[in-house]
Amino acid sequence: MRRSAFASLAVFLSLSSGVALAQTPLDMAQEQANSQPGPRIVPGRSIPVPTSTVSPELAKQIAAAYRPVAWNANPPDAAAWTALVNRLAAAGAAVQPAWREKLSVTISQATMGGVPVFILEPKDMPAANRNRVLLNIHGGGYVYSPGEAGTGEAAAMAGYGHFKVISVDYRMPPAAPYPAAMDDAMAVYKAVLASSDPSHVAVFGTSTGGGMTLALMLRAKDEGVALPAVIAPGTPWSDMTETGDSYKTNEWLDNILVSYGSGYLVHAALLYANGHDLKDPQLSPIYGDFHGLPPAILTTGTRDLFLSNTVRTHRKLRQAGVEAQLQVFEGMSHANYTIDPFTSEGREAFEEIARFFDTHLAK
Amino acid sequence: MRRSAFASLAVFLSLSSGVALAQTPLDMAQEQANSQPGPRIVPGRSIPVPTSTVSPELAKQIAAAYRPVAWNANPPDAAAWTALVNRLAAAGAAVQPAWREKLSVTISQATMGGVPVFILEPKDMPAANRNRVLLNIHGGGYVYSPGEAGTGEAAAMAGYGHFKVISVDYRMPPAAPYPAAMDDAMAVYKAVLASSDPSHVAVFGTSTGGGMTLALMLRAKDEGVALPAVIAPGTPWSDMTETGDSYKTNEWLDNILVSYGSGYLVHAALLYANGHDLKDPQLSPIYGDFHGLPPAILTTGTRDLFLSNTVRTHRKLRQAGVEAQLQVFEGMSHANYTIDPFTSEGREAFEEIARFFDTHLAK
Repeated sequence: MRRSAFASLAVFLSLSSGVALAQTPLDMAQEQANSQPGPRIVPGRSIPVPTSTVSPELAKQIAAAYRPVAWNANPPDAAAWTALVNRLAAAGAAVQPAWREKLSVTISQATMGGVPVFILEPKDMPAANRNRVLLNIHGGGYVYSPGEAGTGEAAAMAGYGHFKVISVDYRMPPAAPYPAAMDDAMAVYKAVLASSDPSHVAVFGTSTGGGMTLALMLRAKDEGVALPAVIAPGTPWSDMTETGDSYKTNEWLDNILVSYGSGYLVHAALLYANGHDLKDPQLSPIYGDFHGLPPAILTTGTRDLFLSNTVRTHRKLRQAGVEAQLQVFEGMSHANYTIDPFTSEGREAFEEIARFFDTHLAK
Repeated sequence: MRRSAFASLAVFLSLSSGVALAQTPLDMAQEQANSQPGPRIVPGRSIPVPTSTVSPELAKQIAAAYRPVAWNANPPDAAAWTALVNRLAAAGAAVQPAWREKLSVTISQATMGGVPVFILEPKDMPAANRNRVLLNIHGGGYVYSPGEAGTGEAAAMAGYGHFKVISVDYRMPPAAPYPAAMDDAMAVYKAVLASSDPSHVAVFGTSTGGGMTLALMLRAKDEGVALPAVIAPGTPWSDMTETGDSYKTNEWLDNILVSYGSGYLVHAALLYANGHDLKDPQLSPIYGDFHGLPPAILTTGTRDLFLSNTVRTHRKLRQAGVEAQLQVFEGMSHANYTIDPFTSEGREAFEEIARFFDTHLAK
């Protein structure tokens, strides 16, 4: 009643005063639609590409169309999934030599703990980093970026941070659903610890790789395996259910993931889980116990569908007493910084993570 | 061309495969509308209130209607502004005694540097905080919350952090536009320094108070006045022009500020600036030089219209080599944590800031 009285007053002022309130039909429709408690009603809009607040290179990423096929892929069977994944992986791998050239990074292949890995190394390695090693778990929704296609983030960190990075080429569905990916990550992590003190080890990854980084910490705690000195879960898929405000608020705005239910995510989640509960902390680590986790730095963007996954993880780490830093980039959609690490914001994100690693890794 | 080919392929797969892609008309419309680089087209939506990821008290704030009158106030003249501000201030002041009671905080009035202030003190003051003093600059878009109505954030910090807090009752338009508010804040800050070592002093504020906290640092640097040990600009109005992605992405979603151009902000900005350039760093501190600023902790929420103001400030502080922490709360609109500091998230925000102050203030 009180609210209606105020609203009437506003209209009355508008009509009776010499100066118009300039309320548009949209303003009035919005006020009416949001005049009672409940879900928030937002109008359809054309949202401009920010220009003065982001670099020209990032502005180009923000302006980009939804990624054809990839954003809402839903192949009808295992063979179609494999064909799509392989086609995209071939395109992803093709750009990697040029990336490594720009970053002054070399690549080699090895097997650790029975799992294939790529080793990315900077051509100039500072003395302080000679005993340090970073384990990277690549992203791609548990389905995309097998093989060399998954090495871009490791190359960026090796190049910008001047660290040796081991990138796990973990198994994925449809051939190998959960827990194969986590088994592989764990096997490589244990192999790293066989030759490095945990105080010299960092683990990082973006998106699925961020979720797996967190799940790896929970599993290591459970199995009594030493934790690394520091982690960087970037925009982690910490909740594989569509739980978290930005799954809705940033839906259609994020041009990388676009949507959970209308996008490929829901299909990838179910393919990976293979019947397991999506709320199992090994799949959705936000439901795990974060006490005792190592210092963490988290990265996301204002348009990221996983903004909530990231900030919920950050708050939960802080609530558990873990030192945790958060960086949020203006205008970025999901994982823009690693999809193209050559924007000035991409470089800044990696350099900030590298500084955090340098602070927390023993020499 | 390549994009169109992919899009056609998706439709072809959908039609030719046994399993439907389940693309809805909305999906197809969205894909079509975002199939070329340009502004992002988002559909009108009803966005649910998050439940499992926020406290029941914060869920109630998120569900709340737009604030009648306050959200889009545009009084036709000075007398109407004053009448509106006074009416809202009376309502705001009325709840303060109950807040202080809950927080175990006392209030007194004084004059410092010729400016009226309120002094908020916790009933139990730990020994470590006896020499420490916090300066609070209240929010309210440079127009709202004169007098006791502006003391809520100071009371919350005094209660949760167990600090002595001095809250500046600075002059505001229409009676006193820029630079009166900054002159008053500066006068009180200098008066604080007359009796306290800067190492014992923190400055904080939310929204307009966050912008003024940053502007005060720039002015102190310019005038050769010592900077405090630590600051907390909460969701700062660091850019008074409508510049920053979340002014658009979170428009209509944030139920506190709602909109810049359709809301009261544009009117308040022009009333305060009184013809001054809105991009002057004393009005929009994001355009200033952040080198040498004290350690800072920033607070915002995923639905905050000032999400970009906050993260742009955070990045710029980090680029200037300043130690700066960011906390982003799930689902929060603008300044929810100080509008109601009694949600568990509100308490958490203040306690996190208090911890940061404790780390950086001398004893």
